[in-house]
Amino acid sequence: MAKEKIAVVAGVGQGLGASLCRELCSCGYHVAAVARKPAILDRLRDEADAENHRLTPVICDLLDQRSIEQAHASIKALSGDISVYIHNASLFCMDEYLKTSADIYENVWRTTCLSAVHFTQLILPDMMSHKQGSLLFTGATAAVRGGAEFAAFASAKFALRGLSQSLARELGPQGIHVAHIVLDGIIDCDWTRERFGVKKEKALYPEEIAKIYRFLIEQHPSAWTQEIDLRPSIEKF
Amino acid sequence: MAKEKIAVVAGVGQGLGASLCRELCSCGYHVAAVARKPAILDRLRDEADAENHRLTPVICDLLDQRSIEQAHASIKALSGDISVYIHNASLFCMDEYLKTSADIYENVWRTTCLSAVHFTQLILPDMMSHKQGSLLFTGATAAVRGGAEFAAFASAKFALRGLSQSLARELGPQGIHVAHIVLDGIIDCDWTRERFGVKKEKALYPEEIAKIYRFLIEQHPSAWTQEIDLRPSIEKF
Amino acid sequence: MAKEKIAVVAGVGQGLGASLCRELCSCGYHVAAVARKPAILDRLRDEADAENHRLTPVICDLLDQRSIEQAHASIKALSGDISVYIHNASLFCMDEYLKTSADIYENVWRTTCLSAVHFTQLILPDMMSHKQGSLLFTGATAAVRGGAEFAAFASAKFALRGLSQSLARELGPQGIHVAHIVLDGIIDCDWTRERFGVKKEKALYPEEIAKIYRFLIEQHPSAWTQEIDLRPSIEKF
Amino acid sequence: MAKEKIAVVAGVGQGLGASLCRELCSCGYHVAAVARKPAILDRLRDEADAENHRLTPVICDLLDQRSIEQAHASIKALSGDISVYIHNASLFCMDEYLKTSADIYENVWRTTCLSAVHFTQLILPDMMSHKQGSLLFTGATAAVRGGAEFAAFASAKFALRGLSQSLARELGPQGIHVAHIVLDGIIDCDWTRERFGVKKEKALYPEEIAKIYRFLIEQHPSAWTQEIDLRPSIEKF
Repeated sequence: MAKEKIAVVAGVGQGLGASLCRELCSCGYHVAAVARKPAILDRLRDEADAENHRLTPVICDLLDQRSIEQAHASIKALSGDISVYIHNASLFCMDEYLKTSADIYENVWRTTCLSAVHFTQLILPDMMSHKQGSLLFTGATAAVRGGAEFAAFASAKFALRGLSQSLARELGPQGIHVAHIVLDGIIDCDWTRERFGVKKEKALYPEEIAKIYRFLIEQHPSAWTQEIDLRPSIEKF
Repeated sequence: MAKEKIAVVAGVGQGLGASLCRELCSCGYHVAAVARKPAILDRLRDEADAENHRLTPVICDLLDQRSIEQAHASIKALSGDISVYIHNASLFCMDEYLKTSADIYENVWRTTCLSAVHFTQLILPDMMSHKQGSLLFTGATAAVRGGAEFAAFASAKFALRGLSQSLARELGPQGIHVAHIVLDGIIDCDWTRERFGVKKEKALYPEEIAKIYRFLIEQHPSAWTQEIDLRPSIEKF
Repeated sequence: MAKEKIAVVAGVGQGLGASLCRELCSCGYHVAAVARKPAILDRLRDEADAENHRLTPVICDLLDQRSIEQAHASIKALSGDISVYIHNASLFCMDEYLKTSADIYENVWRTTCLSAVHFTQLILPDMMSHKQGSLLFTGATAAVRGGAEFAAFASAKFALRGLSQSLARELGPQGIHVAHIVLDGIIDCDWTRERFGVKKEKALYPEEIAKIYRFLIEQHPSAWTQEIDLRPSIEKF
Repeated sequence: MAKEKIAVVAGVGQGLGASLCRELCSCGYHVAAVARKPAILDRLRDEADAENHRLTPVICDLLDQRSIEQAHASIKALSGDISVYIHNASLFCMDEYLKTSADIYENVWRTTCLSAVHFTQLILPDMMSHKQGSLLFTGATAAVRGGAEFAAFASAKFALRGLSQSLARELGPQGIHVAHIVLDGIIDCDWTRERFGVKKEKALYPEEIAKIYRFLIEQHPSAWTQEIDLRPSIEKF
C-alpha cells in the first residue's frame, strides 16, 4: 500500500488557510491543519470526514518553539510522508511606528517568520532524504514594499521573503521546491469584511488562491516558480 | 452555435511557441500561429488536423507593421473572437556592446517589444469591448537583470516588461488580464541544444511552460498574476 | 598643459539639463551642452562666459543618428577628452494606450533610449582606451514601475535602465562607471509648473539633483553606485 | 552658543563603523560611538582627541534592550541634539540552513534588525519634535537577494530593508530622512582580509563608503535618496 502524502498547513484561519486545507484534501493529501484554536479545525475536520477526505487538526502556538516541536511530533506519528509545507501564519499589524511597541514588533516577526524557521527545520531532514517536497510561503504586498505604518508587518514579511529566496537557492538543486506567493489585496472572509470593509468583488477569493498553491505544488521540476503575485483584477497597484 | 475562441501566438518557433500552440489547441482554442517562415507552422497544422484541433498558420514579418496589420486582418476574418494574445517573439543577441551595431540594437527592440505594440493595439479594441481577454508576454532573466554583453537584449526585454506592467495597470480594471512570464533558463529545443549545449535535465521544458501559460489564462479575475518566474529546479539564480 | 576634461550633457532643457551644465562647469569641466534648440544653449553659454567657465553649445536632433554623429564630431574637435556623458534626453508621454500611436511609442523610445546607444557607442572607444569615464543615465519612477497610461514612457525608461545595467556590468571592470538615477517626482522648472501645477516645495530642485550627479562622477572606484533614487521629502511613494 | 549636533553610530568595529565615526567627527558632529567592546572605541576616542574632535564611546550590548536604553540615556545626557542615527550593526552568518540553529537565526535578526527598532524608537521622539534628522541603515547584497546558505543573514537584512522603507514613507513627510545603503561587496579591513581573503583592490574602502553616508546626510530635502547601492568597480554582480 502506498504511503499517504501529508500536507502541513500552518496558520489556518477561516480565510485562506481553510481553503488551502480543502483544496489539498480534495486532491488526495492527508492535511495536517495547524492552528492555535480548535474551533475552525474541528469544522474543517467535520467537512473532510463528510467527504471521505483526511484532515487532522493540530493545535499549536506558533509563537512557542516547544509547541511547534510537539505539533511536528504528532504529524510525524501519522502514517505518511510530509511532502508539502505551507506557511500561512502571520500576525497583522498596522500602526504608527512609535505606537508599535518593540514587543509587538517582535511578536509579528516570531509569528510571521521565525515559526517558519522552527517548522521547516523539523520537516526538511525527511524531505531532503527523499529529495522531494514543496515549501510554500504566503507573502503580501508588504513583503516587497514597506508602506507607512507597516514597519512591523513589512519587516516581518520582508524577512520571510528573504528566507524563502535563500531556501529556494539552497534547496532547489536538492529537489525541494520553495515558492513565495505575493498576495496583493485583501482576502475575502468574515474577518476582512469587518476589519477593512472590502466588498467581495474587490477581494481575493481564498478558494482561487488555493488553486494556485496547488498548481505550484504540481509544477514539473523543469519549470518551477520561485515567486508569483496575485491580485484582484480591479486592484490598484 | 457558440463562437470559437481564438488564441494568437506571435513568434512560433520549434521551442516554446510550438508547445503553446499545442497546449491551447488541446484545450479548445482555435490557434492563430504567427511566424515568419511556413515550415514549422505547416507541421503544427498537420499535427492539429490529425487531432481534430484548429490551427491556422499566419505568415508574418513582425519587423514590419504592414505585415502585422495583414496578419491581424487574416485572423479577424476567422469566425471567432480573439480572447488570448501571447507575445512570444524576440530576437536574441549576446555580444560586446561595441560589437552590437545600432541597427541590430534597434531590430532586437522592434522584434521583441515594438511588434507587441503593433499587434496588441490591433487586438485590444475588440477585447475591450468584450471586457475580456488575456495578454501574455514572454520575458526572460534579461527582463529583470541587465547582464554584461546583453545590452540590446536586456534593454528590449526590459522595455517589454515595462509595457506589460503599464498595460496590466491600465487594462486590468477593464477586464483584460496582462501577465509577464520571466523564463530564467534555457528552453529545451534543437536550437538551444546546439547554441548553448545545455542538457535536457538542465533546461526548461517547453510543454511544461505552456501549461503555466494556460493556467494563467484560466485564472479567475479575483486572483490574477501579473508576474511569475520559471526556472529548472537545478538552475543557479 | 593638462588636457581639458569634457562633459557631454545630452538633452539640455531649462530644468535638470541646465543645472547639470552649471554644476559641471563650476567644477572645471568643459561642458558640451547638447540640445535641439539653440535658445537655452545660448543662454547657458552666456552665463558660462560671464563666470569664465567653458560651455560649448551643440545643436543636435537626438532622433537622428547622423545628427548625433555630427554632434560627436564637433565635440571630438574640442581640445580635451570626454570623461563624462550624461544622458538626460527623454520624450514624455502620458496617455491611454490606444490613443498613443505606434509612431509616438517609437519616438519616445528613440529619444529616451536609442539616442543613448548612438551617442555612447561613439564616445566609449576613447573612454575604454583610457580605462576611465562616467556614463550617467537619467531615469524616472517609470523606469521601475509601469503605471497606467505610461505604456510608451515606462517602456522606454525601462529600456534605458536595462541598457544602463548591462553597460555597468560589462564596462565597470574596464574602469567605466555607469549609473542610473531614478528621479521619483517632478523637477521644478517653468514647464513642469505649467504642465503639472506642482508647487516648488513639492518638487525636485534641479540644482540639488545636479549635485548628486557630480557626486556620482566623483565616487572612488572602490565604492561605485549603479542605482540611486531621489525624491522630495514629502513625496508619496 | 549653538547646541552640538550628535551623531550616533551603532555597531562600531574596525571597518566601516570606525570610518563613519572619523568622517562624522571631521565634519563637526559629536559622535556617540556604540559598540560592545571598549578596545576599538578607546582607540577612536584617542584619535578624535588628538584632532580636537568630539567622540564619546558608548558600551552597549545591542542584543539587550535594557543595555540600549542605558546607552541612549547616556547619549541624551550629552549636551546636544541627536540629529543622525546610523545603524551599522549586524551579525554575519553563512551556513547550511539545517546547520544554522534557530537560536543563531534569532540572534542574527536581533542584532541586525531588532536593535535598530529599539534604538530608533528611543531617538525618534526628539527628531520628530524638531522635524529633522537622518536615519541610515547599512544594508548588504543579502538585503535584496537571498543567496544559498544565507537564510539567517538574508532574512535579517531583508527585515531591516523593510523597516527602512516603511520608516522612509512614514517619516519622510515629517522631515526625517531614512536611507538604506546596499553594500555589495566585502569591506576592506583586517577581519574581512582574514575571513574572506579579499585583496584590497577588490574591496569596498570603508572611508569611501563613509563619504557617501555623509553625502546622504547632507542631501537637501528636495532630493532625498531612499536607497543606493555601492560596490567596487570590478565586482561581479
